[in-house]
Amino acid sequence: MDFAFDSRTEALREQLTAFLTEHVYPAESRLTVEPDWSTPAVIRELQQEARGQGLWNLFLVDKHSLPGERGAGLTNLQYAPLAELTGRSIQLAPAALNCAAPDTGNMEVLNEFGDEAQRKQWLEPLLSGEIRSAFAMTEPEVASSDATNIRTLITRDGDDYVINGRKWYITGAMNPECRIFIVMGLTDPEAEVHRRQSMILVPRDTPGVTVKRAMTVFGYEDRDHGGHAEVVFDDVRVPAGNLIGEPGSGFAIAQARLGPGRIHHCMRAIGVAERALELMCRRVSERVAFGKPLAAQGVIQDWIAESRVRIEQARLLVLKAAWLMDTVGNRGAHTEIQAIKIVVPQTVEWILDKAVQAHGAAGVSQDTPLAQLWAGLRTLRLADGPDEVHRRSLARRELRKYQG
Amino acid sequence: MDFAFDSRTEALREQLTAFLTEHVYPAESRLTVEPDWSTPAVIRELQQEARGQGLWNLFLVDKHSLPGERGAGLTNLQYAPLAELTGRSIQLAPAALNCAAPDTGNMEVLNEFGDEAQRKQWLEPLLSGEIRSAFAMTEPEVASSDATNIRTLITRDGDDYVINGRKWYITGAMNPECRIFIVMGLTDPEAEVHRRQSMILVPRDTPGVTVKRAMTVFGYEDRDHGGHAEVVFDDVRVPAGNLIGEPGSGFAIAQARLGPGRIHHCMRAIGVAERALELMCRRVSERVAFGKPLAAQGVIQDWIAESRVRIEQARLLVLKAAWLMDTVGNRGAHTEIQAIKIVVPQTVEWILDKAVQAHGAAGVSQDTPLAQLWAGLRTLRLADGPDEVHRRSLARRELRKYQG
Amino acid sequence: MDFAFDSRTEALREQLTAFLTEHVYPAESRLTVEPDWSTPAVIRELQQEARGQGLWNLFLVDKHSLPGERGAGLTNLQYAPLAELTGRSIQLAPAALNCAAPDTGNMEVLNEFGDEAQRKQWLEPLLSGEIRSAFAMTEPEVASSDATNIRTLITRDGDDYVINGRKWYITGAMNPECRIFIVMGLTDPEAEVHRRQSMILVPRDTPGVTVKRAMTVFGYEDRDHGGHAEVVFDDVRVPAGNLIGEPGSGFAIAQARLGPGRIHHCMRAIGVAERALELMCRRVSERVAFGKPLAAQGVIQDWIAESRVRIEQARLLVLKAAWLMDTVGNRGAHTEIQAIKIVVPQTVEWILDKAVQAHGAAGVSQDTPLAQLWAGLRTLRLADGPDEVHRRSLARRELRKYQG
Amino acid sequence: MDFAFDSRTEALREQLTAFLTEHVYPAESRLTVEPDWSTPAVIRELQQEARGQGLWNLFLVDKHSLPGERGAGLTNLQYAPLAELTGRSIQLAPAALNCAAPDTGNMEVLNEFGDEAQRKQWLEPLLSGEIRSAFAMTEPEVASSDATNIRTLITRDGDDYVINGRKWYITGAMNPECRIFIVMGLTDPEAEVHRRQSMILVPRDTPGVTVKRAMTVFGYEDRDHGGHAEVVFDDVRVPAGNLIGEPGSGFAIAQARLGPGRIHHCMRAIGVAERALELMCRRVSERVAFGKPLAAQGVIQDWIAESRVRIEQARLLVLKAAWLMDTVGNRGAHTEIQAIKIVVPQTVEWILDKAVQAHGAAGVSQDTPLAQLWAGLRTLRLADGPDEVHRRSLARRELRKYQG
Repeated sequence: MDFAFDSRTEALREQLTAFLTEHVYPAESRLTVEPDWSTPAVIRELQQEARGQGLWNLFLVDKHSLPGERGAGLTNLQYAPLAELTGRSIQLAPAALNCAAPDTGNMEVLNEFGDEAQRKQWLEPLLSGEIRSAFAMTEPEVASSDATNIRTLITRDGDDYVINGRKWYITGAMNPECRIFIVMGLTDPEAEVHRRQSMILVPRDTPGVTVKRAMTVFGYEDRDHGGHAEVVFDDVRVPAGNLIGEPGSGFAIAQARLGPGRIHHCMRAIGVAERALELMCRRVSERVAFGKPLAAQGVIQDWIAESRVRIEQARLLVLKAAWLMDTVGNRGAHTEIQAIKIVVPQTVEWILDKAVQAHGAAGVSQDTPLAQLWAGLRTLRLADGPDEVHRRSLARRELRKYQG
Repeated sequence: MDFAFDSRTEALREQLTAFLTEHVYPAESRLTVEPDWSTPAVIRELQQEARGQGLWNLFLVDKHSLPGERGAGLTNLQYAPLAELTGRSIQLAPAALNCAAPDTGNMEVLNEFGDEAQRKQWLEPLLSGEIRSAFAMTEPEVASSDATNIRTLITRDGDDYVINGRKWYITGAMNPECRIFIVMGLTDPEAEVHRRQSMILVPRDTPGVTVKRAMTVFGYEDRDHGGHAEVVFDDVRVPAGNLIGEPGSGFAIAQARLGPGRIHHCMRAIGVAERALELMCRRVSERVAFGKPLAAQGVIQDWIAESRVRIEQARLLVLKAAWLMDTVGNRGAHTEIQAIKIVVPQTVEWILDKAVQAHGAAGVSQDTPLAQLWAGLRTLRLADGPDEVHRRSLARRELRKYQG
Repeated sequence: MDFAFDSRTEALREQLTAFLTEHVYPAESRLTVEPDWSTPAVIRELQQEARGQGLWNLFLVDKHSLPGERGAGLTNLQYAPLAELTGRSIQLAPAALNCAAPDTGNMEVLNEFGDEAQRKQWLEPLLSGEIRSAFAMTEPEVASSDATNIRTLITRDGDDYVINGRKWYITGAMNPECRIFIVMGLTDPEAEVHRRQSMILVPRDTPGVTVKRAMTVFGYEDRDHGGHAEVVFDDVRVPAGNLIGEPGSGFAIAQARLGPGRIHHCMRAIGVAERALELMCRRVSERVAFGKPLAAQGVIQDWIAESRVRIEQARLLVLKAAWLMDTVGNRGAHTEIQAIKIVVPQTVEWILDKAVQAHGAAGVSQDTPLAQLWAGLRTLRLADGPDEVHRRSLARRELRKYQG
Repeated sequence: MDFAFDSRTEALREQLTAFLTEHVYPAESRLTVEPDWSTPAVIRELQQEARGQGLWNLFLVDKHSLPGERGAGLTNLQYAPLAELTGRSIQLAPAALNCAAPDTGNMEVLNEFGDEAQRKQWLEPLLSGEIRSAFAMTEPEVASSDATNIRTLITRDGDDYVINGRKWYITGAMNPECRIFIVMGLTDPEAEVHRRQSMILVPRDTPGVTVKRAMTVFGYEDRDHGGHAEVVFDDVRVPAGNLIGEPGSGFAIAQARLGPGRIHHCMRAIGVAERALELMCRRVSERVAFGKPLAAQGVIQDWIAESRVRIEQARLLVLKAAWLMDTVGNRGAHTEIQAIKIVVPQTVEWILDKAVQAHGAAGVSQDTPLAQLWAGLRTLRLADGPDEVHRRSLARRELRKYQG
């Protein structure tokens, strides 16, 4: 057992920290959104710099090619602390490094399950940052936490599939540069319950695809990263070759996608927490009320201590989950992945709430990033399945240890 | 001791419930905001209906005139359950009845502390709903929870006062119908600490007043009730007669204003909680996951029980605080007013959080009122002084019981 | 609606407060337990004084006789604040006034459901304080929160009933003065599920009754009030006339008994909380660490404020539940009774935890009453059905409001 | 970074697990306390077995001798998971392996700071398990969390020191086999604040030493491990050579002692949590209420999931703290040691509370270990300084990162 990062990780952490300090933090105040929801100019600039430095596609654990050929060839454990660093400037840094959701998960799906043609057509431009992508799973009509509820139909018709359904909270889809949707739907509604779904590639400009409206998240449109769209698929016809993997493999691919996806979300969230704690500490050191800095108030010290204690614990569990994924695979890391999906969002939400409170009115305003970060973290408590579903599932696995 | 409402209260509750059912709830889906932030048309319609029914200015406890002459002549205890009912449709009902903050508090200040001319010029059109008003206290530069931090200057110059300062989160001020600001500032920075401040009436169109920008609250602009403005006062000159009460009385008037204001906020918040609980119960009864309605899940039942138990307790404390204000005055009700200021926002926020979670993605979206209600309630935890200030003050009073 | 106590209540509160100050508090340090678990001498002394003052059997809401004939003829609402006062010295005061559980509940059962002979034989000596009683419901083998699980058999055999079963946590039963047990068991295991149980009177000295051992509660034996016994009933034969009410009425009587029982527990628990808060305030005002009294620490002030806010809310809900029992009966007060059963123990436990913490090692020791009070309150969270059962039941009632 | 235990640790874990299964768990029901508080016979038996297997003094990180000469020569990181295993049977296993507090800490002090004579006279018999020891620091009169409050005097008088003072909660001191006390007191009340205290060795049978009474912990005497004594030192005279280290070094030695002590407490507490979770899972799988096992209740599943998530996080933080102590020393591990002192007791207390609740009345009784374990863990929240002191200290260190 050893809690030190290896030398490659340390070197990349150093490089990335410098990149944040020199390029990203100074750019934060320059972030402005585009009227058409396209990628903000400042992110484009940062991408160029990052790519030049080789800080690009660090997330991709490429199992099919030599290290470096695609992605940086890092293990999950090596990538984790880097993702955390990007979370410190979460509106800019992940996108700057081409390591932002949902593109990361989509690239992993294509890399792992796509065929040569699909990888050529969609993975390459995603890896180069030319286009963006979306993952269309959640539906407004059903509890999508239970994937067997999904109602969108993907019906075979000759050499094509025809897609009909309604999806929402499709992150990134408002950005016109988002050229491709991975759509989850039913190919065989009568099959065994986990063999009914498939994933299929639907180019944005296919007839019948309507990006209907922007959903908000506690009042935020999240324009800078392409928003969250409601998308209607009305007799959308694509070639059969657009199906990813075998028909009926959708549930399995989703499971494979969500494991690393959760790790990435959690890694970045730890970075968010560190930034929030820093902002809180700085604010309370400067702000004076009733004759002394807020930092001298016992209740505020209590928040700070609690924040530090929670962050340290949560980070270690994320790192262990990453290590397990590397050593025993996603399946062997099931409990830990579920555990971090449960604990990290609520932990970081708690810290953000206290950081907001310490900032007073500024904390809920557009003048600090805290309120928007809060909204994002709060939403993680229900995205990819609400906490309650994961808690129940984890509990049942625990109970099985002691049941005949 | 008697926990039944009196007959007048019961009659008004019945009338108001009918008004909500027939007019307000059906209008909710018709609420659209105006480009210039002015009062939405649907609220105008509802106001006409409410006024016709005598459901108008119910909040005003008029100590200077006969019951009914100004306001409905209700006690705080009679008004409380009516305010709660308006909280069930908080975007429409309080405004429909001319019982919305900050106008209510401003009308109370004018009624109680304004002179005849001030009441004639500003109270009359506010009571009739012709104009709106704002209360300019909070400043971005200082911890305004400690009123002695306020820096805006109100300087005597001949027959005028000249005002210089910057205020933000001035609720309602984006609405062009908001014609008058009550501004809190320093008239005598050298005086005893609670005699330094005064309140002064500043018409919106006075030269030097700049409504600079709309502040957001967790991404919401709250356009339907006039937003939250940053307002700059730059050598703003008004006649000396615009000062409310004596010079140096600002702190005392603020204290007098905030007591009833808190009661009103808390009353309405209980109504918000009831509505949220209803929405949660309805949602979980309809939504099916993993083969049964969400309502059958033990964890969700636990939220519902906890919500009911908390609401019942919080409501009784609000009612008792109202009763104390009626019987022993604001001063005698100090502990209870502070207690509800502490407990009601956090209670209702908790319930809203659970209602959001039970709604999944819809809960954070614009398709239910829950996320916006949450943002409003969360902000109450720091508006009019953060919880922590009130908790400390309440604790010190408790400790004094046992200290020499 | 009126939050003032009536004049009779106020007079009794004054009298009882004087009794506590003059007689009870000074006696606390003199409480010593008897080797045979019988009533401590100091309680006997206090009983004599209390009885002389008419502070006796205040709990009994006598529906069959004129006020004063049996009990004081108080309403639940009048008794509530008196019970709270006795909670301030909960080891002495309830027993001193002959208002201690489980005798109070047992006397109510006999008064309400006993026949003339049963009342003569057992109610009279209980009312006069000559003997004590126990209520034997909980069984070690089954989840007794679900009364239908009860396994003790009460079998008719000629003119007798024969009782076989094992009960535990039979409070008071270690005291040899506890002469009579009310035993809950199955008279008709085949009947409709809520008509299977009956209650029967079993004198302590009946052959086959074995008081087997003293159960502990977090290390406490609670010797001063007769402990908590495990009792075995092995072919215990009593005359058929010992059955209370009709065969099959046990469940209904239990429900009738538990409503007021919960109110009494909760009333007293509020008094416990007030005492704990007083002890906490006194301690932190005296104790110095790191150069200032603990009372100056923000975190401790936060505990004090939270305690006060929670007590005020909980007390009002208990009082409202009492008022509902008086005005619409136990059935109409169902939600509120359940609500206080849920919220009061956890509230008071929380306050006791903080009071313990504020006392350091003394808090967990025998030198303050806090640790023992904590153990008692903690146990209330599972006595008479664990919180979780009540929360689920309350939630289901709430949900039914919105379901077809 | 590597989360796997090394091979020596794995081998010892295997051996220790077998020892627990074969010897310790079966002995639990045979534990009975001795009337004179001496070491229970069953512990003596287990000690013989453990020693025979080389499972003895594993805790001792011996910096002065070759591995194995004294202690097992394990690192803190190697010892941590073993200590956790002993926590699974905390009343027997730590004592069985001669790894129980307070002896472990006392042996470390003697090993590290004692001179040759002191080590010969006291360390040897402690290492062999012949005698036991106590650590006399806490005083009833002062907030001992602030060591500068300590009032016991250690006054030089010729070749002797004379000790006067009162200590309490001196764990283990009721056991007559406890032959030696390490007493903390003032040798120079006028010195710089952290150079005032010294530690001195006081044999139990020195004239003037009175073991006055047994303090209880939530009703428990903890007889099986020597209880918690109040001890009076009245003109107790010992040779000057009994002083440990230099005069004035008491505070520094205490700091050095408490670091590892906290690690040990926390390691074992994780084992307690694992055992409690196992007991909870087993109980709810067997117990039926309302027609299904408790394990099928969503709320109980929620407790189980939360328990698992919290344990995983807390364990990792304890392990990291151990690793830091090994690699950068106690000073470098300060934040992490403080963090586990804060978080582990509250985490394990929470889990025990839920395990108690899941067991109903049995949970608070003497028939399961849960209530007693709870009392021990609750007490850890205030032993060695209450949480609040550590939280404040940790917060201040965090704040200093951002302050000039």
